[in-house]
Amino acid sequence: MTSSPPVSVAEPGALTIGTDGTMHGRTSGYDKHLGDLVGVYRDGAAFEAAVAERGGDELVYRVEEHRAGEGPGALIIGTSTLLPGRVGEEYALTRGHLHARADRAELYHCLSGRGVMLLETLSGERRAVPLAPGEAVHVPGHWVHRSVNVGDEPFVTLFTYAADAGQDYGLIAEAGGMAQLVVDDGAGGWTTRDNPDHRGYRTERAGEPS
Amino acid sequence: MTSSPPVSVAEPGALTIGTDGTMHGRTSGYDKHLGDLVGVYRDGAAFEAAVAERGGDELVYRVEEHRAGEGPGALIIGTSTLLPGRVGEEYALTRGHLHARADRAELYHCLSGRGVMLLETLSGERRAVPLAPGEAVHVPGHWVHRSVNVGDEPFVTLFTYAADAGQDYGLIAEAGGMAQLVVDDGAGGWTTRDNPDHRGYRTERAGEPS
Repeated sequence: MTSSPPVSVAEPGALTIGTDGTMHGRTSGYDKHLGDLVGVYRDGAAFEAAVAERGGDELVYRVEEHRAGEGPGALIIGTSTLLPGRVGEEYALTRGHLHARADRAELYHCLSGRGVMLLETLSGERRAVPLAPGEAVHVPGHWVHRSVNVGDEPFVTLFTYAADAGQDYGLIAEAGGMAQLVVDDGAGGWTTRDNPDHRGYRTERAGEPS
Repeated sequence: MTSSPPVSVAEPGALTIGTDGTMHGRTSGYDKHLGDLVGVYRDGAAFEAAVAERGGDELVYRVEEHRAGEGPGALIIGTSTLLPGRVGEEYALTRGHLHARADRAELYHCLSGRGVMLLETLSGERRAVPLAPGEAVHVPGHWVHRSVNVGDEPFVTLFTYAADAGQDYGLIAEAGGMAQLVVDDGAGGWTTRDNPDHRGYRTERAGEPS
């Protein structure tokens, strides 16, 4: 038996989570606007046209989250609300990331709308998991991931991941985008297509935070 | 820059989660039966009568879960379905636990039914968080926690926690039960009452797994 060290105990969070992504009890959050997504869509001319038409300040997605404490065991629980739309052939998407601590997993549980979670490993594995209300994807560590809204309504997910995971957002840009594009299939649905600009992910990574 | 070590990459899990607790895509699960809960309810005579009447094999709660990989960043995602009922004055409950790695947090998101999450720290802090569909509780590390069903239908939650968290189930029994009982308030609802058998939690703990 060892004497317990003094521990910092965080207050539990009582949360009310709407299918519209509202999270009562949240501790933080942020909005992303169309103008923040420079370089994220493959079709640069279509992106510039969208900014000219819709304005760079148009809300494209919102994150609300609840944090309670820090450290290796702490979680971040939140909602992601990704508005519908298209830029060129591509459906509305988030920037996407690999966790800075790449072994950190994440849950995304769909609360409303219709989306796809794009998943890719540094060594070239690819997955595209469709999500509708009641469906979820367990994203293990080491998967680059991005949400895509393939419907006409906001695509809302509840997410949970380790508070110390962090995000590497540069990886995708350096690779010329993710390997998969989610595009209109011409028949009222979506399909994935190879991104011809994708150069493969760097397999050498900066030392991870310890 | 450091050369990446070879990493074990787990397959993502595509899950369909019913509000009845069914989880298509699960990798494991377990059932608890009334007879498994010896010593969990305060009223031993009422418990023995319940076993005599309902049978020790009666299902009382079910867990379905999805695991993808191991290690400090891996998660366990699952559903807990706690059937309604009473034993003496107490509403149906789970055994409850502190994580063996006590700093590991957990999310419980209510999918159906009505329940309460009882939360207590080793130093005597107490909380009782009501849960209805759409409500969630973020349980930070260092909180002993137990689910209680205060309704007439199954109480179903989606949970997420670190795969390396583990459970210390002995702590509550050694303390004479949790400090709070969830009982009928005599007016169609529930209330908490002090458990006169509670002796306080041991503040000396066996060394945690490293």
